Amino acid sequence: MVNVALNLDAVGKVSEPVERSWTEKDVLLYALGVGAGAEDPTGAELAFTTENSHGIELAVLPTFVVLHGGGGRIDIGTFDPAMLVHGEQAITLHGALPTTGRVSTTRRIVGIYDKGKGAVVVSESAAVDSVTLEPLFTSESSVFIRGEGGFGGDRGPSASGDDVPDRAPDESVSYPTRIDQALLYRLSGDRNPLHSDPAFAARAGFDRPILHGLCTYGFTGRALLHAVAGSDPGRFGSMAGRFSRPVFPGDTLTVHLWRLDDGATVLFRTENQDGDTVIDRGRFTLR
Amino acid sequence: MVNVALNLDAVGKVSEPVERSWTEKDVLLYALGVGAGAEDPTGAELAFTTENSHGIELAVLPTFVVLHGGGGRIDIGTFDPAMLVHGEQAITLHGALPTTGRVSTTRRIVGIYDKGKGAVVVSESAAVDSVTLEPLFTSESSVFIRGEGGFGGDRGPSASGDDVPDRAPDESVSYPTRIDQALLYRLSGDRNPLHSDPAFAARAGFDRPILHGLCTYGFTGRALLHAVAGSDPGRFGSMAGRFSRPVFPGDTLTVHLWRLDDGATVLFRTENQDGDTVIDRGRFTLR
Repeated sequence: MVNVALNLDAVGKVSEPVERSWTEKDVLLYALGVGAGAEDPTGAELAFTTENSHGIELAVLPTFVVLHGGGGRIDIGTFDPAMLVHGEQAITLHGALPTTGRVSTTRRIVGIYDKGKGAVVVSESAAVDSVTLEPLFTSESSVFIRGEGGFGGDRGPSASGDDVPDRAPDESVSYPTRIDQALLYRLSGDRNPLHSDPAFAARAGFDRPILHGLCTYGFTGRALLHAVAGSDPGRFGSMAGRFSRPVFPGDTLTVHLWRLDDGATVLFRTENQDGDTVIDRGRFTLR
Repeated sequence: MVNVALNLDAVGKVSEPVERSWTEKDVLLYALGVGAGAEDPTGAELAFTTENSHGIELAVLPTFVVLHGGGGRIDIGTFDPAMLVHGEQAITLHGALPTTGRVSTTRRIVGIYDKGKGAVVVSESAAVDSVTLEPLFTSESSVFIRGEGGFGGDRGPSASGDDVPDRAPDESVSYPTRIDQALLYRLSGDRNPLHSDPAFAARAGFDRPILHGLCTYGFTGRALLHAVAGSDPGRFGSMAGRFSRPVFPGDTLTVHLWRLDDGATVLFRTENQDGDTVIDRGRFTLR
């Protein structure tokens, strides 16, 4: 008998819609949490970090949607939350986001796959403006749950995304993160002590707290926004990538970009200061 | 006839009590805004920057009270707000602050003084716990309003506080501030564009936005808390000082301390990296 702790019947289930809202303050706090304004005495990022600068209109960093893509609860069974790590994250935006918003988000379990050493749970969610009912964004994420594989299930698709071309990147953008980056990022919602408490991080096998994967994702999204989309959130179409290695607060992140011939697609990879890849199989598209 | 724009009848007036409240998130955001956690891979400031670290209880930085010391509105007349600068700030705490709180604050105008080139308005406020009615803290601040002097009024008392002893400081504590320090501090409430918008700062005569005086005050309070009060907010009694020069985001602040023989009083001065004094006549007392 195989002891399946995950609820395989969850596959295909759709959650109730969940209402979430945000304020300008949430937008500003998120932008600072992913490093906007930190390197910027010239003011190029004031559009994301201030709401009252002369001649500058507040705009929302597109990766902000990761905070609001959760959707309602679906019972996927029981497991140790400490065994869960974020695998892949994709977002698609249908336009620039409003600086104050209220969205209704629905979530669906796409698949629960058996990778032997663990299980992969893939879910997708779609958010519509609560007032106009216009679609605002969709989000797809996968999590890997160590120790929950071996239940004789489908292995599922191999990693999505593309390998980068076998040539030097067309452009590289570097941002330092800070010792206290996670302390700031967590105020946008994810208070998992893995990212702040040295004692908790030690129990999870880390020398010190690690940065939120979605914070690294936000830094990477800023690099893509500025380097590819001309700093215009309205041109930010989609972004996908796989978390391949933990990042520590204080690491320097470098996003390497390869522009494809269609003029709208960029493949990317994010590395730390030692050249280790922390996000791979990255794909970005312009709107 | 002298054209008095300030309302001298305001002196002695007491405001209606104003209710203000704060949450743990406000407490955490303020701590990060005044640099807590920024230099701290060892975790000594997790008590101020996290609410869920193992064996560590969230505590409130004592200077947090400056956000809640305003009290109700009193009509002090009309003037150009761009001409107003913070002069002195004193706070007295009756004990450690709760991590979530609701206070009722009453404000009184102590004096409006004629300094010739401008006017000084001194006000004090007292906050009590809205539920228990216990006194939590008092606050006294003075503002200098350029161009509003010359109305033939009393010059008022000279600067309060003490000169520091004529000897080397007993201890000095340095903290760097960041390029984006004001962008973060402003999310605790003071959105004056003088601290974020280069265009606005230029109109006020500055090459670039200046740091909030109360942010410098918060950095200084952290230094005093750690160096003098053993990092225990319950031992932080009072702190007073005068803002003598603007600080720019990115400046490094050094707080020089002189311990007095009573064992409970410390005089201090805060300098920037060029040795210019930015807070003078500082006095701190232990509880």
